[in-house]
Amino acid sequence: MSKVHNFSAGPCILPQEVLKQASEAVINFNNLNLSLLEISHRSKDFVEVMEKAQALVKELLDVPDGYSVLFLQGGASLGFLKAAYNFMKEDGSAAYLNTGTWANKAQKEAARLGTIIEVASSADKNYSYIPKNYQIPGSADYLHITTNNTIFGTQLKNIPISRIPIIADMSSDIFSKKINVADFDMIYAGAQKNMGPAGTTLYIVKDSALGKTGRNIPAMLDLQVHIKKESMFNTPPVYPIYVSMLNLQWLKDNGGVDWIEKINEQKAALLYNEIDNNPLFKGTAEVDSRSNMNPTFVLTNDALKDEFDAMWQAANISGIKGHRDVGGYRASMYNALPLESVQVLVDVMKEFTKKHG
Amino acid sequence: MSKVHNFSAGPCILPQEVLKQASEAVINFNNLNLSLLEISHRSKDFVEVMEKAQALVKELLDVPDGYSVLFLQGGASLGFLKAAYNFMKEDGSAAYLNTGTWANKAQKEAARLGTIIEVASSADKNYSYIPKNYQIPGSADYLHITTNNTIFGTQLKNIPISRIPIIADMSSDIFSKKINVADFDMIYAGAQKNMGPAGTTLYIVKDSALGKTGRNIPAMLDLQVHIKKESMFNTPPVYPIYVSMLNLQWLKDNGGVDWIEKINEQKAALLYNEIDNNPLFKGTAEVDSRSNMNPTFVLTNDALKDEFDAMWQAANISGIKGHRDVGGYRASMYNALPLESVQVLVDVMKEFTKKHG
Repeated sequence: MSKVHNFSAGPCILPQEVLKQASEAVINFNNLNLSLLEISHRSKDFVEVMEKAQALVKELLDVPDGYSVLFLQGGASLGFLKAAYNFMKEDGSAAYLNTGTWANKAQKEAARLGTIIEVASSADKNYSYIPKNYQIPGSADYLHITTNNTIFGTQLKNIPISRIPIIADMSSDIFSKKINVADFDMIYAGAQKNMGPAGTTLYIVKDSALGKTGRNIPAMLDLQVHIKKESMFNTPPVYPIYVSMLNLQWLKDNGGVDWIEKINEQKAALLYNEIDNNPLFKGTAEVDSRSNMNPTFVLTNDALKDEFDAMWQAANISGIKGHRDVGGYRASMYNALPLESVQVLVDVMKEFTKKHG
Repeated sequence: MSKVHNFSAGPCILPQEVLKQASEAVINFNNLNLSLLEISHRSKDFVEVMEKAQALVKELLDVPDGYSVLFLQGGASLGFLKAAYNFMKEDGSAAYLNTGTWANKAQKEAARLGTIIEVASSADKNYSYIPKNYQIPGSADYLHITTNNTIFGTQLKNIPISRIPIIADMSSDIFSKKINVADFDMIYAGAQKNMGPAGTTLYIVKDSALGKTGRNIPAMLDLQVHIKKESMFNTPPVYPIYVSMLNLQWLKDNGGVDWIEKINEQKAALLYNEIDNNPLFKGTAEVDSRSNMNPTFVLTNDALKDEFDAMWQAANISGIKGHRDVGGYRASMYNALPLESVQVLVDVMKEFTKKHG
């Protein structure tokens, strides 16, 4: 079969060499003559996987001393609750920037525990832009941001300047570009975009910021418990962590975040250039808020939908149907998606327009 | 390499044919020319996996109408919290049977939300027995039990007769023998013993029992939310669910729970018979409380430890080192462990004793 150009919004494309190793480990891991799936998580062989995964995160993101790296369960959705439990004081408050469905969900979960101040929202225009010029209340315990909004195709180009700690859900753009970890008290991210398969969630946490809320925190939500137990308070999601480790190793071997950031910029420039210059398409996000991960666009003439759909399907393109909240198309271009796949999509768009020229 | 006799306490042995299919799906799933790890969880292909896994649970355990089957994240440890949130009323109480480390942890998590009545405990004798003849308070919202205690090698032979609803953590013996689901308001189980690899947790919940606590339940802990979203409130742990589905299909194809229960009884009889009749070994759990899943035993003469260890290692036996809280040995014999592996262990024990006869 010919290659599929996989633009899935997540779980998303992973490198072929990662998948090959991941497949082999299911049969025979580390020449143990045992599957990775059937060994103890406390075995030397898996403990090494966990330690290597943590070390790769630290190296790739240049994580400063005083931060812990965890691989937990529950997705960013459980992270919404962990953020509030671990950083919002009893009778405290937290500031949230509402830039999309997931940002809004984060806020709603935290609202169960205390007062939420929504510093700004782009809900008025179906989350098609990242708000600017808002006040961050100095009295809030933290500011929560969602750095990339997969559904609406927007991305924060700059981290807000804030006197209060920042907590960031980076599920859909972590490892896609350089970040300065010291800007954050916590970063968390579901694995299933640029890190690995679904089933584990990365936390990068400033140790000294923990233990200050005065809350009775359930063990599974208490980041200090997980730090003390080195992500093994209970049985970790072994396989998702292993594949994440392989994928981070792939990123490192190829040149790290500096390398991938340049490629991601090339991919985004190629597709946005076509969207902007092709009269049959238009982008849905405001130009200065556009995501390099999830460009969203619509046809200018809906009557041509079936024809365009047939063309990209014929080109073996997969996963570009837009989310129902936006419609149209979303071409997710995570790290493992090669530039050539974007070129194939752009060629289809050009060909389509030529026909209707 | 020769076959490893894998007695790991969990994550534990899985059938070779399951591992083979699981490995292939990482490269090319359903002939999509895509890995299972890189497709959307909302794709037709994965939705079918989820539905099939749920249907297999219902069929294998003869789940009555009015119960929902969920595959969530967080392990039984997050289940401890879900049990209390979903079943313990505001200002209510819950009864707990304390039969081991995990039972005790379940109780501690629930104690954050309300009053806990410990109906009985075997902590006085290092959890080496299952308590009998205790009172279950009729005023409590539920009775929580842990049906098998992996660390201490004990197992509830009978479900208590109770006028209040029963919630059971069956992490380490679900699918090993017949159960009557109607006896429970909720059953939950981490996958990594008899169901599949680490990373997902099964919930079987009586729908009509939910929504009665009056609590403000965080979305990720609210079973009604997960039921409504059919285990896809957020991205599910795709691969652990898939491999669990394959493993449940393997169980069904071979004759289901009736079939495996007989084999598990044979394996237990074989090993316990040797433990009881071999003068160099003794069991650590009381006879009527012994687990068919995790027989625990010690040497009667500790000075012979190195010699015995060398012998079972030479026989390619893996994973029988006891938990530090009990010492000695623990030979976990989950569903996928063949009778022949138990025979190999028994032969080593006989051979060892012959030498010292």
